[in-house]
Amino acid sequence: MTFANAGTLGAVPGRRDELVAHLTRRGPRLADAGCLLYEVGVNDDEPDTVFVVELWTSAGAHRASLELPEVQQAIAEARPMLSGQFGGFRFEVVGSPLRATT
Amino acid sequence: MTFANAGTLGAVPGRRDELVAHLTRRGPRLADAGCLLYEVGVNDDEPDTVFVVELWTSAGAHRASLELPEVQQAIAEARPMLSGQFGGFRFEVVGSPLRATT
Repeated sequence: MTFANAGTLGAVPGRRDELVAHLTRRGPRLADAGCLLYEVGVNDDEPDTVFVVELWTSAGAHRASLELPEVQQAIAEARPMLSGQFGGFRFEVVGSPLRATT
Repeated sequence: MTFANAGTLGAVPGRRDELVAHLTRRGPRLADAGCLLYEVGVNDDEPDTVFVVELWTSAGAHRASLELPEVQQAIAEARPMLSGQFGGFRFEVVGSPLRATT
């Protein structure tokens, strides 16, 4: 079942755009790992936060991706840019009004 | 610029699945209105909440969609199923590691 992660990552003040650049760098193995969508963005009302929405083929695929060496390295590199504040939510996708047939 | 909305909608206890069914009914004009993605789901850790992630061609397209008669009607129909608790966040999409070329 498709799994969704919607998250907020607090950035160290002044380092938001650097964190965005880091998160949007090409992840050549993400698609193979089951990542269907990974959108990264900003909202100037919250200038020290980076926002992500992700879709994965399953919650297990998402969990397993966190163990990939490439992802572990990316997390380590991001750590100095992170304030330590995280938010958001996760869910199992049930459907979409764009795909519904009735 | 692509606009993202990630939201939580509190449901009246016992009416979550009815709200999910309502939100996943076919919305034939959504794509024309600029809706690129609209995923609806649940998380059994929060049994009275419905989760959505949406992507739109722009924040303006999202805002304008709320005025469509079809959407106004859907909102009115949903009202008795909603507890009044809402959460989430909105952002402008900057990029994706799945689309990046460098």
